[in-house]
Amino acid sequence: MPGLTFTATGKQAGGEARTGLLETPHGIVPTPVFMPVGTQGTVKALTPAMLQEAGAGLILGNTYHLYLRPGRELVKRFGGLHRFMNWNGSILTDSGGFQVFSLGALRKITPDGVLFQSHIDGSKHFISPEVAIGIQEDLGADIIMAFDECTPYPATYDQARISLDMTVGWAKRCRTARTRPDQALFGIVQGGTHLDLRREALEQITEIGFDGYALGGLSVGEPKETMMEIVHEMAPRLPVHHPRYVMGVGTPEDIVRCVDCGIDMFDCVMPTRCARNGLLFTKEEKVVIKNARYRDDPSPIDDTCDCYTCRNFSRAYLRHLFISREILAMILNTIHNVRFYLRLMEDIRISIQKGEFDRFKKGFLKAAAEGDSAEDNAP
Amino acid sequence: MPGLTFTATGKQAGGEARTGLLETPHGIVPTPVFMPVGTQGTVKALTPAMLQEAGAGLILGNTYHLYLRPGRELVKRFGGLHRFMNWNGSILTDSGGFQVFSLGALRKITPDGVLFQSHIDGSKHFISPEVAIGIQEDLGADIIMAFDECTPYPATYDQARISLDMTVGWAKRCRTARTRPDQALFGIVQGGTHLDLRREALEQITEIGFDGYALGGLSVGEPKETMMEIVHEMAPRLPVHHPRYVMGVGTPEDIVRCVDCGIDMFDCVMPTRCARNGLLFTKEEKVVIKNARYRDDPSPIDDTCDCYTCRNFSRAYLRHLFISREILAMILNTIHNVRFYLRLMEDIRISIQKGEFDRFKKGFLKAAAEGDSAEDNAP
Repeated sequence: MPGLTFTATGKQAGGEARTGLLETPHGIVPTPVFMPVGTQGTVKALTPAMLQEAGAGLILGNTYHLYLRPGRELVKRFGGLHRFMNWNGSILTDSGGFQVFSLGALRKITPDGVLFQSHIDGSKHFISPEVAIGIQEDLGADIIMAFDECTPYPATYDQARISLDMTVGWAKRCRTARTRPDQALFGIVQGGTHLDLRREALEQITEIGFDGYALGGLSVGEPKETMMEIVHEMAPRLPVHHPRYVMGVGTPEDIVRCVDCGIDMFDCVMPTRCARNGLLFTKEEKVVIKNARYRDDPSPIDDTCDCYTCRNFSRAYLRHLFISREILAMILNTIHNVRFYLRLMEDIRISIQKGEFDRFKKGFLKAAAEGDSAEDNAP
Repeated sequence: MPGLTFTATGKQAGGEARTGLLETPHGIVPTPVFMPVGTQGTVKALTPAMLQEAGAGLILGNTYHLYLRPGRELVKRFGGLHRFMNWNGSILTDSGGFQVFSLGALRKITPDGVLFQSHIDGSKHFISPEVAIGIQEDLGADIIMAFDECTPYPATYDQARISLDMTVGWAKRCRTARTRPDQALFGIVQGGTHLDLRREALEQITEIGFDGYALGGLSVGEPKETMMEIVHEMAPRLPVHHPRYVMGVGTPEDIVRCVDCGIDMFDCVMPTRCARNGLLFTKEEKVVIKNARYRDDPSPIDDTCDCYTCRNFSRAYLRHLFISREILAMILNTIHNVRFYLRLMEDIRISIQKGEFDRFKKGFLKAAAEGDSAEDNAP
């Protein structure tokens, strides 16, 4: 029995935007889907009950962090990450590659794998494609990712080629190393900002054959236009009968634009991290909750929002909590931002199903641009 | 219409322990009751929904903090503290005196009132009995407290006498200043550790006449035996038809002992503060969740507890969250500790109603003492 079935259920006429159903051992997830990020076995500041109430069906866990703490054996002994963190929905784990490569001077890359030092205690570790798959099998997510090198930006053509070749070699080893039939394994297309390398990567990765395909190495510092050019070129070429995932993306506007290119899956720390920093999303504007203008504001963050925070609390109260550095500020802000992202995905799916995505996209991007320019002009 | 009615519903035969019903404009609160502390308009790390699920009916707000931030006018404009923080249960506010006196060098006390500097921005403020009542009327709690001087420990007889005389004078002024008939006003009995001063204070405060009576100036550094001696002597002398409140108390053992003396109301930061520091209460032991012995422990904090945390999470997971400094650690720990305190109060009330409080008390204190000594012997 395969760990995952994907059914494309609808496509916007004349465009690439599509809806689908992703069926994992832990439920059916409608796509396009946004995955809140649960780095250390918790989506920061939320209980699983809050996550569920916000409408999350699929969340992301970080293999690097969980491998270091609490450790793969412990999570395995507890029946996997779902049971350890008490999350009954679906989980995708990344391969750990992105975090390991981010360690900079603390890691050394060879074709065999990566030797690195823990950011927690300096202890030395080695992760190869086989180890990355083994850890992810212990964590037991519904969807696991091949171990890749996230090509940095900028990278010359030659650097991107060498990196890509290594990623393709590692992808084959991951494909061979996997043993759990109840887990889906996704391949990752790298290639930096070089479109011909991206196309070559896509050919080689799809030839190996995975349960889903991701575009990696985006949203790592390249100009927004470059990112969108690559997604625009590559997404429609990714196999149509498999889910398509852009890793680490992004802003609400990025997500709408990527859906327009045919992408099904997203993850980003933006809603949760921004919430903790007091930046709250609405369709019309980004609310910087500490601003004095909200001191007396009796309205909710967004009066069209159905989240616990917007149903019960004023901007004035949220400002008070944030300025007073209360933990409840983090909780309530995160509830709202996660719900905002998940509701955006609901709106996207509905508009695609109704054949109105194009209009939705234009309206959404226009409102966002007007909100940004209003903020630029604010005193 | 009075803001509060109190009905003593049962008393342990041969003892002072009693149950009662405290009826406020926001509900009926069974006593003995523990009030979780919500200093800045939030019980730290809990949503109001979580507080309600834990069984809280009455919480405490701190006038000093709310006066400085967000300010009395703002809270008043939002319809009072209940609506500002979205808490539909009952609220008691302290007078601000305790916090102001804790400022040490930043405050100057005269019979008129207290001049002090804000701990937030150094701004200068003056609080008199009249101002303290005015602020508490703006905050709009169900129960408000007279402005008193919390006599420090140690205090000589003469110091305690001077402090007491000032508190009695202020109590009269508070009684005169109050205007809201929907709020109950409690008087506070001071007198340091001098029993004859305490008795004199009690006479003078009850003669002024309040809706309830508190013992103040306890749990401020005096030996536990001294505190219990004063509660033991004073509690039964407090008017029997009014609620009796020991301010700032205490440990679970303190609460059980004070109930035994006839006390009805308690507040303390202990359950919430300990939770944030990773100290979790059970009847048998205090769990220091960061300890390595819990690394692999699949059991909940307390397998007899019905809180969200104990129903869903292992000690191993809670240890992981705490060590990883995750906000969810604070949330889940606080849910448990608050529920532990509120369940203790439920157990106390049931045992009094059954006429079994004496046995309950002995069993509880014995188990607690054994737990403490087991911890002393732990490696």
